[in-house]
Amino acid sequence: MSGRSHTPVTVLGLGLMGSAIAKAFLAAGHPTTVWNRTAAKADALVGLGAENAPSVAAAIAAAPLVVVSLLDDAAVEAALDAAGPALRGRVLVNLTSSSPEQSRMRAEWATRRGAEYVDGAVMAVPQGIGTPDALLLYSGSETGYRTAEPALQALSAQGIHLGADYGRAAAFDAALVSVFWLSLFGVSLGLALAGAEGIQGSELVPFTPAVLALLPAMMAQTAAQVEAGHYPADDTSISSAYEAFTTLRAVIARHGIDTGVLDASGDVFRRALEAGYGADGLARLVPILAGGR
Amino acid sequence: MSGRSHTPVTVLGLGLMGSAIAKAFLAAGHPTTVWNRTAAKADALVGLGAENAPSVAAAIAAAPLVVVSLLDDAAVEAALDAAGPALRGRVLVNLTSSSPEQSRMRAEWATRRGAEYVDGAVMAVPQGIGTPDALLLYSGSETGYRTAEPALQALSAQGIHLGADYGRAAAFDAALVSVFWLSLFGVSLGLALAGAEGIQGSELVPFTPAVLALLPAMMAQTAAQVEAGHYPADDTSISSAYEAFTTLRAVIARHGIDTGVLDASGDVFRRALEAGYGADGLARLVPILAGGR
Ligand SMILES: NC(=O)c1ccc[n+]([C@@H]2O[C@H](COP(=O)([O-])OP(=O)(O)OC[C@H]3O[C@@H](n4cnc5c(N)ncnc54)[C@H](OP(=O)(O)O)[C@@H]3O)[C@@H](O)[C@H]2O)c1
Ligand SMILES: NC(=O)c1ccc[n+]([C@@H]2O[C@H](COP(=O)([O-])OP(=O)(O)OC[C@H]3O[C@@H](n4cnc5c(N)ncnc54)[C@H](OP(=O)(O)O)[C@@H]3O)[C@@H](O)[C@H]2O)c1
Repeated sequence: MSGRSHTPVTVLGLGLMGSAIAKAFLAAGHPTTVWNRTAAKADALVGLGAENAPSVAAAIAAAPLVVVSLLDDAAVEAALDAAGPALRGRVLVNLTSSSPEQSRMRAEWATRRGAEYVDGAVMAVPQGIGTPDALLLYSGSETGYRTAEPALQALSAQGIHLGADYGRAAAFDAALVSVFWLSLFGVSLGLALAGAEGIQGSELVPFTPAVLALLPAMMAQTAAQVEAGHYPADDTSISSAYEAFTTLRAVIARHGIDTGVLDASGDVFRRALEAGYGADGLARLVPILAGGR
Repeated sequence: MSGRSHTPVTVLGLGLMGSAIAKAFLAAGHPTTVWNRTAAKADALVGLGAENAPSVAAAIAAAPLVVVSLLDDAAVEAALDAAGPALRGRVLVNLTSSSPEQSRMRAEWATRRGAEYVDGAVMAVPQGIGTPDALLLYSGSETGYRTAEPALQALSAQGIHLGADYGRAAAFDAALVSVFWLSLFGVSLGLALAGAEGIQGSELVPFTPAVLALLPAMMAQTAAQVEAGHYPADDTSISSAYEAFTTLRAVIARHGIDTGVLDASGDVFRRALEAGYGADGLARLVPILAGGR
C-alpha cells in the first residue's frame, strides 16, 4: 500500500458501526468498496463515492485492506466462509465484537486462508468514528497492523496495538465493555429514578461528569489493592456502602422501578458481609466477583 | 455568623466522611467542635485543633452551624433525639445519605425543634472533600443555606442549592448514586475479568476514561429521547447491544466470574426484546426500568 490517502479499503458490514467506518474512510480520501448482506444499506455510501461490491469475494478482491464490522463472530463466519480463498494476501482487520477465544479462532481461520489477521475492538459509538475521541484497540499480526495503520488513522488517531496475541484486544474489550455496560445501566436507572422524583433528565445530566470523574482514581486504587491482595477501606467500607445501597434500593422500590440489577449487586455485598469483609474497602468486591456465585 | 474563616462549626459523626469534613473546616480556619459515638475517633482531629465535645448536646451548643455525617437516617435520629432542644436557633446541615422522604421527615423534625434545616448530599469520596473536585448538593431552608454557605465553601467550591424542597438534594443524590453504584460495579467486574485474562488492572486503567467519556453524551441523548417519548437507534440498537452482551456474558461465565449483575441487566434487555423494541435505541431501557419487573 502506498500513502494513507490512496490505500484502497474494503468494508464488510454496513450496520450503524460499519457505515460510520466506511464514511470515515471515504472522508479521508480512501477508495472504498463496501458490501452488506442487505445491499440497500450501501446506497447512502455509494452516494458518497463508495463502490458497492456484488459479493463478499468481489469486495475482498477490490482492496488489500479488508475491515469487517458485523454483528458477531457467527455473522463473520457466515459472510466470509464462502469467500475464504479471496483472503490470500489480504490484511483482515476484524472490528466485530468477539470474545478472546473467538478472536483467536478467527485468526487461525484467516491465517490458514493466507491473510494477515488483526483483531480490533471499537471503544466508541459510531458518531465517534473519525473523531479524536474514538479509542480503537488492536492486537494480532504485527505485519498486518503496520501495513494497515496509516489507513486506520482515518478511524481514529487513538489506535493502539496491544501485542501479537490475537485475543488481547478482545480481552481488553470485554473488561472495558463490562465497565461501560453497567455504567450505562446506571445511567438508565438514574434517569428512571429522576423521572419518578420529578427531576428532568436534562437537570441531572450536568452533575453526572463529576460523579463519573470519581471512577478512574477509584479504579486505580482498586487495581493496586487487588494486586497487593490487601483491601483497606481508605474511602468507604463495604458495610457503610451497603447502608447507602439499602437507602437507594428503598427509594427505587417505592417508585415501582425495576430493582433487579441493584438487587444482584446487593447479593454480592451480602456475600462480602457474610464472609466477614464489612470493614474492608470496595476493592474486596473484585475477588468476591472473581470467585463466582 | 461573621466572616468565613471565623464561623465556629460543629461536626457530628467522625466516620471516614465526617473526619474529612472536620479536617476541611479546621484547614480553613474554623473553630471546630466534634462529636462521635466512639469518642476515640476524635483524637486525630483534636491533634489538629478540634474540640471534642462530651455529648451531642454540648457539641451542638458550641457552634451556630452543625454539620452531620452519620451512617444513615436512623443513626441521625439515635444521636440527635436526646439533644433535640439544643437545636433551637441552629443551622443544621445534614450530609448523611438519606432518601428524599427521610430528608423531608428529618426537616420536619428539626424545624419543630427550632433549627433551620438544610439537607445535603456528598457526591465525592472523603479524599475529595476540600478540593475543587467535590460536588455537594443542598436543598431546604434558604435562610439556613445562605448563613452556612461561606463556611460550607471549606468543603467544596462546588456547592449547589437546588431549592427549598428538603428532599430535592436527596432525590438528585439517589439518581446520581444509581449511576455511580452500577459504574463502580462495572469497574469491579472489569477488573475481575482483566485478572482472569492475564491483564493487570494497571494496564486497563488508562483506557477507562475514554470509555466513561462516552456516557455524558449518551445520557444527554437518552434524557432527550425519554422526554420526547421517541427512541431511535442513533448509535446502537437494543438487539445489537444484546448480541454484545451475550458475547461478554459468555467470556465472564467461562472464567467462573459471578454473572449475577450482568444477568439481571440481560433480563431487562430480554423484556425489551420480547416487547418488540429490538430496533429501538438503548434509551428505551429507561421506561422499561421505570415500569418495574
Ligand atoms: N454501535 C455501537 O455503538 C458499537 C460500539 C462498539 C462496538 N460495536 C460492534 O460493532 C459491530 C457492528 O455493530 P452495529 O452497531 O453496526 O450493529 P448493527 O447495526 O446491528 O449491524 C449489524 C451488521 O451485521 C450484519 N449481519 C448480521 N448477521 C449477519 C449474517 N448472518 N451474515 C451477514 N451479515 C450479517 C448486518 O447485515 P444486515 O444489514 O443485512 O442485517 C449488519 O450489517 C458489533 O460487533 C458491535 O458489537 C458497535
Ligand atoms: N465514604 C464515602 O465515600 C461517602 C461518600 C458519599 C456519601 N457518604 C455518606 O456519608 C455518611 C457517612 O459515611 P462514612 O463513610 O463516614 O461512614 P462510616 O465510616 O461507616 O462512619 C459511620 C459513622 O456513623 C456513626 N454511627 C453509626 N451508627 C450510629 C448510631 N446508631 N448512633 C450514633 N452514631 C452512629 C459511626 O459512629 P462510630 O464511629 O461510633 O461507629 C460513624 O461516625 C453516610 O451516610 C454515607 O452514605 C459517604
